Amino acid sequence: MAAQNTLEKIVSLSKRRGFIFQSSEIYGGLNGCWDYGPLGVELLRNVKEAWWKAMTYRDDIEGLDASILMHPRVWEASGHVENFTDPMVDCRECKSRYRLDVLYESYNEKRRKKIAEAYAELLATDEAKREAFSALSRDGQLEAAGNALVDDAVVFEALNGKELLACPNCGRAGTFTVPRKFNLMFKTFIGPVEDSSATVFLRPETAQGIFVNFLNVSQAMRQKVPFGIAQIGKAFRNEINTKNFLFRTREFEQMEMQFFVRPDSDMEWYEQWRAARLQWFIDHGMTADKLRFHPHAPEKLAHYAKAAVDIEYEFPFGWGEIEGIHNRTDFDLRRHSEYSGKNLEFFDDETKEKFIPYVIETSAGASRSLMAFLVDAYVEEELEKETRVVLRFHPKLAPFKAAVLPLVNRDGMDDLGKKLYKDLQKEFKVFYDESGSIGRRYRRQDEVGTPYGITVDSQTLEDVTVTVRERDSMQQERIASAQCGTYLHEKLKM
Amino acid sequence: MAAQNTLEKIVSLSKRRGFIFQSSEIYGGLNGCWDYGPLGVELLRNVKEAWWKAMTYRDDIEGLDASILMHPRVWEASGHVENFTDPMVDCRECKSRYRLDVLYESYNEKRRKKIAEAYAELLATDEAKREAFSALSRDGQLEAAGNALVDDAVVFEALNGKELLACPNCGRAGTFTVPRKFNLMFKTFIGPVEDSSATVFLRPETAQGIFVNFLNVSQAMRQKVPFGIAQIGKAFRNEINTKNFLFRTREFEQMEMQFFVRPDSDMEWYEQWRAARLQWFIDHGMTADKLRFHPHAPEKLAHYAKAAVDIEYEFPFGWGEIEGIHNRTDFDLRRHSEYSGKNLEFFDDETKEKFIPYVIETSAGASRSLMAFLVDAYVEEELEKETRVVLRFHPKLAPFKAAVLPLVNRDGMDDLGKKLYKDLQKEFKVFYDESGSIGRRYRRQDEVGTPYGITVDSQTLEDVTVTVRERDSMQQERIASAQCGTYLHEKLKM
Repeated sequence: MAAQNTLEKIVSLSKRRGFIFQSSEIYGGLNGCWDYGPLGVELLRNVKEAWWKAMTYRDDIEGLDASILMHPRVWEASGHVENFTDPMVDCRECKSRYRLDVLYESYNEKRRKKIAEAYAELLATDEAKREAFSALSRDGQLEAAGNALVDDAVVFEALNGKELLACPNCGRAGTFTVPRKFNLMFKTFIGPVEDSSATVFLRPETAQGIFVNFLNVSQAMRQKVPFGIAQIGKAFRNEINTKNFLFRTREFEQMEMQFFVRPDSDMEWYEQWRAARLQWFIDHGMTADKLRFHPHAPEKLAHYAKAAVDIEYEFPFGWGEIEGIHNRTDFDLRRHSEYSGKNLEFFDDETKEKFIPYVIETSAGASRSLMAFLVDAYVEEELEKETRVVLRFHPKLAPFKAAVLPLVNRDGMDDLGKKLYKDLQKEFKVFYDESGSIGRRYRRQDEVGTPYGITVDSQTLEDVTVTVRERDSMQQERIASAQCGTYLHEKLKM
Repeated sequence: MAAQNTLEKIVSLSKRRGFIFQSSEIYGGLNGCWDYGPLGVELLRNVKEAWWKAMTYRDDIEGLDASILMHPRVWEASGHVENFTDPMVDCRECKSRYRLDVLYESYNEKRRKKIAEAYAELLATDEAKREAFSALSRDGQLEAAGNALVDDAVVFEALNGKELLACPNCGRAGTFTVPRKFNLMFKTFIGPVEDSSATVFLRPETAQGIFVNFLNVSQAMRQKVPFGIAQIGKAFRNEINTKNFLFRTREFEQMEMQFFVRPDSDMEWYEQWRAARLQWFIDHGMTADKLRFHPHAPEKLAHYAKAAVDIEYEFPFGWGEIEGIHNRTDFDLRRHSEYSGKNLEFFDDETKEKFIPYVIETSAGASRSLMAFLVDAYVEEELEKETRVVLRFHPKLAPFKAAVLPLVNRDGMDDLGKKLYKDLQKEFKVFYDESGSIGRRYRRQDEVGTPYGITVDSQTLEDVTVTVRERDSMQQERIASAQCGTYLHEKLKM
């Protein structure tokens, strides 16, 4: 099946079966925001729960849930106020505003080439800038090129003079302002006065909530380095280009863990977490061949990082990051020490040393992970007479753990079925369906990834056994009705 | 113990033991925002999980997780843009801005009385306004009085003229502007341009995310009225006065359920949910005597409500709402129909009727519920030789389900203890402690509400049994070490 076609099918199934809806859909939607429907919210809960257990049901990692609104100084210390930006230009004539890379995308290849040539000429003496800008002629690389441009307002003015760029709104050329940095943090005002002293930001990452609580957590929990702090929560980025369903959104959920280590053991822990995090996706059913590491080249590292690697998944639109593992060094704690005036050093009782710990960060997108699990689970199988659509979720992640399906509605089968369903519902998210043919009911459950179909039939009336059908193999086995709970517990432990 | 003293003790314990920290504490905190530490986040997760299971592990309620940012038209339809306001005044001299009721609070009783008299005199012909304003002389009722004032700018000007109000900043009297409405929604800008067309709000309640998804959910899940949609999520209100720890905060979490019913069955469902929700708090260990219903008088009802009742808990500072049950009629769905142009009627297959369902809402604060559970659990017990501080959490809500405490560190007891701990940790959040006297270790666990203390002692080496101590009764029983998991499972079912 064609790649893009697959994504469309998944988006369609997601809406039809209650996984993902467009946010505020009845009002035409809100770009870059999505709502999780009844099955989507269960899938999301299960992804987060699996991560939370893997990360915090151990001795050396503590949980945390910091607020989304934080003190504005946090984002000065972290570097976000200064560095978390995209370049923007205004048309001086019609006052339209554009992100630089988006503007370039509206030009055709030929024009882009011309601009690149002009730019290259002007920058002949500056190899790094020339290189960055030449990327303009390659799709998907425009953002970096735009960033390079911002640094050279003079050159941009020269380009304006050549009238190569026309405003898409008013059509006039040579009217653009010098590019300015546009900060991707959403800002709002706390209290009644809307001025800069009241400005706060919606956090663009959950990590800083962990850094500012480093002392509180280590003291309250009597933790010693090495130890980690894990957090799940919403983050917001005012992306101009949202795309690819849940992949790039303005509101999203992160699952982040910061592991505080001795500075001399940083790369050892980095390697260990890198491996552990990849394994987590595989353990929860993701196809190993569709996962890879993408290390960041040293010259591409973020300002705080000594080493960084992405875990990428092969989506229908190509490889995309679902988690990043970063060696953030002591950058964040050091900066927060400076900006807050609080000593964030750790004192090692045994060696009597004081040091600011290094941080190994594992930063996963809950929304992106969910999308990868969803895409990876989607299979169209050619059976004898039909095509079967199955979501092959790991049982731990599946929204419903089982469906109870009484075969025919007579002789009290539906009563037995309902009783079993009610019993299971005390502990598990389960579904009950007695309408339509059994084949049709199986297909409906396959399509939402329910791993076990429990059928109540005439034999149930005789010996109180039921048939359990496994979703992927479609194999059936007969077990005592009273054993269904234990059966599911065992399967969910795997 | 004195009431306020109790709250201070709980706030202090919350920080010391890792339940609740001030947000961005190293930067002096952010007013109205709190962070959940390692034990707080577990308590919060358990409260939310208990609610989620009670609400969605049933046939007639579906889950949802809508985004925090929604289309701005949503808040026009809901009435929040127009009505979700507090009155504000500016000092024309020094430009200071005040919330009207806060301003009044800074005046003494005598002055307030004078203002009330002047106002009453002017409004002698308008009984409703006079009544509202007379509330100015009663503490805690100032907000409503302020709102009444906003409607009468002329009167306010007259009051200014009498120089009864002086600006707390510059000290000049008669300098206040006519009160304006200040909207309590946090606003931000989506996309690069900061103007009104790009304005979006942080949701002030999760309910609207449910209403706009009514059609999507009912269709995807084939639900028929009566059915409900449940959601847990963050909401934000730009409160000027935050107070009482977690009770009134700017960022908080809600657990809301909207139950859609036939218009003629609304009061029946209202009564049913009212009872069910009170029972939920009691079932999870809250003292029944500290809970009460507080019905809203008909003239105090919100613009959308036909009937409303608060479930109140008796906090150390007095009775406070922890959940509201509201008959919202068809107000929200009707308004969203009008504003979106989408038909949100439900068609009843059986009766062939079309109608806009009425909504019975159960709206609980997750943060407030947590605070009530925390306060309610806090007990200081006078034992023979000491005072024991215990958090008597219901086992389902307790952050740690058990602590494994090897009696003395010899003969391999610590090895046995660690093995048991590791086994239990696969399924439960448990704690391991081998430092200090056993009495001291029990106290440390009592103080964070761990319901079971499992002691490994010399008899364990002989017959592989352990002692389980129940937190509240302090009674001990001996069970096989291998049975600990099953034991905890059984206790957690209750």
